[in-house]
Amino acid sequence: MKHTRNLSMMTDLYQLTMANGYFLSGTHRAEAVFDMFFRHKGQLNLGVFAGLEQAVDYIKNLKFDSEDIAYLRSLNKFAPGFLDYLADFRFTGTVYSAEEGEIVFPYEPTMIVKAPLIEAQIIETALLNIINHQTLIATKASKVVYAAGDKAVVEFGLRRAQGPDAGIYGSRASIIGGCGGTSNVLAGQMFGIDIKGTHSHSWVMSFGSEEEAFERFSEIYPDSCLLLVDTYDTLNSGIPAAVKVFKKLKAKGHKPLGIRLDSGDLAYLSKRARIMLDEAGFKDAVIFASGDIDEHIISSLNAQGAMIDVYGVGTKLITSENTPSLGGVYKLSSIQLKGKHTPRMKVSSREKMTNPGHKRVYRLYGEDGMASADLIALDGEDLSDPLTLEHETDSWKKFTLKNYTVRELLIPVFKDGKCVYKPRKIQDSAKKAKEELGRFWEEYKRLLNPQIYKVNVSPQLLSLKKDMLREIKP
Amino acid sequence: MKHTRNLSMMTDLYQLTMANGYFLSGTHRAEAVFDMFFRHKGQLNLGVFAGLEQAVDYIKNLKFDSEDIAYLRSLNKFAPGFLDYLADFRFTGTVYSAEEGEIVFPYEPTMIVKAPLIEAQIIETALLNIINHQTLIATKASKVVYAAGDKAVVEFGLRRAQGPDAGIYGSRASIIGGCGGTSNVLAGQMFGIDIKGTHSHSWVMSFGSEEEAFERFSEIYPDSCLLLVDTYDTLNSGIPAAVKVFKKLKAKGHKPLGIRLDSGDLAYLSKRARIMLDEAGFKDAVIFASGDIDEHIISSLNAQGAMIDVYGVGTKLITSENTPSLGGVYKLSSIQLKGKHTPRMKVSSREKMTNPGHKRVYRLYGEDGMASADLIALDGEDLSDPLTLEHETDSWKKFTLKNYTVRELLIPVFKDGKCVYKPRKIQDSAKKAKEELGRFWEEYKRLLNPQIYKVNVSPQLLSLKKDMLREIKP
Repeated sequence: MKHTRNLSMMTDLYQLTMANGYFLSGTHRAEAVFDMFFRHKGQLNLGVFAGLEQAVDYIKNLKFDSEDIAYLRSLNKFAPGFLDYLADFRFTGTVYSAEEGEIVFPYEPTMIVKAPLIEAQIIETALLNIINHQTLIATKASKVVYAAGDKAVVEFGLRRAQGPDAGIYGSRASIIGGCGGTSNVLAGQMFGIDIKGTHSHSWVMSFGSEEEAFERFSEIYPDSCLLLVDTYDTLNSGIPAAVKVFKKLKAKGHKPLGIRLDSGDLAYLSKRARIMLDEAGFKDAVIFASGDIDEHIISSLNAQGAMIDVYGVGTKLITSENTPSLGGVYKLSSIQLKGKHTPRMKVSSREKMTNPGHKRVYRLYGEDGMASADLIALDGEDLSDPLTLEHETDSWKKFTLKNYTVRELLIPVFKDGKCVYKPRKIQDSAKKAKEELGRFWEEYKRLLNPQIYKVNVSPQLLSLKKDMLREIKP
Repeated sequence: MKHTRNLSMMTDLYQLTMANGYFLSGTHRAEAVFDMFFRHKGQLNLGVFAGLEQAVDYIKNLKFDSEDIAYLRSLNKFAPGFLDYLADFRFTGTVYSAEEGEIVFPYEPTMIVKAPLIEAQIIETALLNIINHQTLIATKASKVVYAAGDKAVVEFGLRRAQGPDAGIYGSRASIIGGCGGTSNVLAGQMFGIDIKGTHSHSWVMSFGSEEEAFERFSEIYPDSCLLLVDTYDTLNSGIPAAVKVFKKLKAKGHKPLGIRLDSGDLAYLSKRARIMLDEAGFKDAVIFASGDIDEHIISSLNAQGAMIDVYGVGTKLITSENTPSLGGVYKLSSIQLKGKHTPRMKVSSREKMTNPGHKRVYRLYGEDGMASADLIALDGEDLSDPLTLEHETDSWKKFTLKNYTVRELLIPVFKDGKCVYKPRKIQDSAKKAKEELGRFWEEYKRLLNPQIYKVNVSPQLLSLKKDMLREIKP
C-alpha cells in the first residue's frame, strides 16, 4: 500500500527520555497497565470510537531504523544500550480496545495496554493522536447525522482539514459516524467508501454564461446532472437556467439529479427552489445544500421546514469546530513493583483523578434491550444480579439493576505481541455504530442538554479507590 | 525521504468531474488565473503564511499512476481520453506565492496560479488543504508567542492534533509562528527543529514514591533535570521532593534545570514555587507551565504576575481551538474566452465577492519603515506617489500615501511548470515572520479588538470591479 507510513518516531520526546530512564533504572520490564480514556468536554457526552485499524497498523509497523537511531544518537540524551534496545524494539504486550463504531463515554477506558513499562510508554503518543482524532470526527459526524434525521449527509471538508491526514482519516471517521459519502477521492480509493461531487463556481465562471456552463455540464453528465445555482443570483438566474437545462435533458430521456445551494439563506432559498422545481415538473430533483453547515444549523433548517434533501458538511465537521479535540489521555493504572502488581492512581484533583488497577468495561442492558449503564470493574470481579451501584461522590445515590444482560466493551487486539485484530470493512463499523446508537434512549443523544449516561465504578473498584485515597503517600 | 507521499489523489471528486468536463468541452487549455485568499474569520485578522514547501512538493510530485487511473476508471464517470490525459499529467503553469513567514491579511491573494484551466482546477483542493492548515497554525502560534512576550513557548500538542500530519506539520508551522521548540520527535527529525521533553506523571507513578522517582530521574539526567511536581500534591510533596533532589544534584556539582507545573492554579502555584525554589537557593531553576494554555491564558497569567519562565502549549495551539480552520478559498479571477483573457468575479453576496483579473499584491511602508497598507493591484498597473486610495464601499473614505516604499508580496515559485522555489531553513522562515511582524504597529497585533490593517484595492482594480458590477450578466 503506497499510503502506509512508519510513524514510529511520531512521539513526544519525553516518552523516549522516560524509556531511556526506565531502561537505565532496570524498571523497563516491569509489567504496566495503562488506560486510555477521554474526559467530558464540551459536546462530547457520547462518543463513537474510531481509529483502531490505524492504531493497530502503527503498533504492527513499529520499528526504529538505522536513520532513526542515528538521529536519536545525535541528540546526546540516550544511553548506547538503550539505542541498541530501540533498534530491536518490537511490541510484546497485550492490548484491549473498543471496536470501531462502539459507543463510548467519558472516563471509561476505550483501550487498555498491558505491557512491559517501556513498551507501553513508547506507544502512548501515537495511539492518542490516532484515536483522539478519529474518535473526535466520528463523534462529530454522528451528531450531524443525528440532526439530519432522514436526510443524507455527505462529508466535504478536505480543503479545510488540518493537513492531509486530517482530511483522509477524517473522511474515514465521518463514514463510521454515519455520513453517506465523502468528496475525498483518496479516501474513496484507500477505504472503499462512496465519493461524491459535481462542480463548483469555477465551472460556471469559466464559461461565457451560467446557462452555457449548465448546458455543457448536462451534456457531459446527462444522468448525474446536479447544478450549483448560486454563482450570480440563485432565484433570478441560477434556478431558471437549471430548469431550462433540465427540460432539455428530460426531452432527451434523462432524469436530472437536482441543484446545489451553497450560499444565502438556505431555509428561504430551498423552499423557493422546491416550488420552482416542482412547478417545472421536477418533483424528484433533489436540493443539495452546503456552506458552513453543522448539526445545529441542520436542526434549525429542519425546524424551519427547509426543503433540503442532502446536506454537504465541510469545515465544521472535518475540524469538529465547536470542540476541535477529544482530549483523550493515557494513564498508568497498575505497575509491578518488586514483582507485585500495584494499582496506581493520580489524585492531584477530583476531575483529573484516575481509576486504579487492571480493569474491564461492561455495558449493561435492561430487559427492554436498551443500554442502562456502563460499568468499570476490576479484572476478575464477578457481577451480581441484582447489582446495586453507588454514586462515586454522592454516596446516597444508589441504583439497582436486575435481569440485565452484559456485554464486554473491550476486545483483545494484541495478545503478548501477536496481533489478533481482524480488520473489517468500514461500512460494518458504521453499521455497528448505527445499531448500537439505537440501543440508547433519545435523551442521551439529543443535541441540547443531553441526559448524562451512567458510567459507574463497580463495588470492588470503588472500595479500592477509597482505600487508596486513605493511604496515599507521594 | 521516507516521509514523502504522493498526494495526487487527495482531491475533491468535483475537481476531477470538472476536469473531465473541461477536457470534453475543449476548454481545458484556456489559460486561467486563480487566487487563493482567506476571509476574515474569528481571530484571524493577521496571518503568518506557511506550508509553501509542502505545497511546492505536492505540485512537483503530482502524478496519477496506473493504480490511480484504474480506480478512477472503475468509477465510470470519466472519458477514456481524459484518463489518458491524467496518466500523462504534469503541471505546466506559473505559481506566485507569499513566502513562508510572510505576514498576510484577509482578502489579499496569498497565492496566484496561472495555468491551463484543467491544471489549475486539479491542484485546488490539495493546495488549500496544505496552506490552510499550516497558515492557521503558524498564525495561532504567533499569537501565543506574542502573548508570552519574553517568555519562551514550546509546542506540545502532538497527542491532541487532528491526526499524524496535523501533529507533524503543525509542529513545523508552530516554529514558523515563533515557538522555540516542539515535543514532536518526528518533526525534529524531518525539519531539523529543536525538540524538548523530560517526563510525565507515569514516570512518577511507576516508582514506589515521588521522591524515589525524582531521585532516579536526577541520576540519569543530572544536567537536564526538570521535574514534574504535580502528581500528588504540588506544594506539600512535589516541590519539597524536587528541592531535596536539587540539593543533592548541586552537591555533586550539577545545576538542576527546574520544575514543571501541569495542573492547578498556575498563577498561585508558580508564585509559591518561585519562593520555595529561591529560598532553597535555586534562583536559576526555571518554572515550566503546561495544561490547556493558550494566548489568552498566558496574557492573564502574565497580568497576574505569574512566575512562569516557559510555556508548554498543546491542544489549543495544535488545533487552533478557538478558530480551528482558516477558511482559505481559491477563486477563478480570469479566463481565456475565445483566446482573450476575461476577468471573472463572483457576486452572489458582498462578503463572498471576489476581485477580478490577474493581480499583484504590494506592501507599502511609510517613511518610518512601518507597514502602512497592502495594495491589491492589477498586473501591469503603475503605482503613483503620492497614491490616493478610496475605500471600496465607503467611497468618501480616502487616504493618501506619499514617499512610501513598496515590496511585492508574491514571488514566483513555478514558471511554466518549472519549479523556481528555493527551499530554505524553517528557522529562516521564523526569522522572516518575526522581523516582518516588527514592522507592524502593536495596535494591529494586540489580542483584543485589534485595529484592522488596511488592505486596499488599487484605483484600476476598483474601476474594473465597478464596471463589471454594472455589466454583470449571469
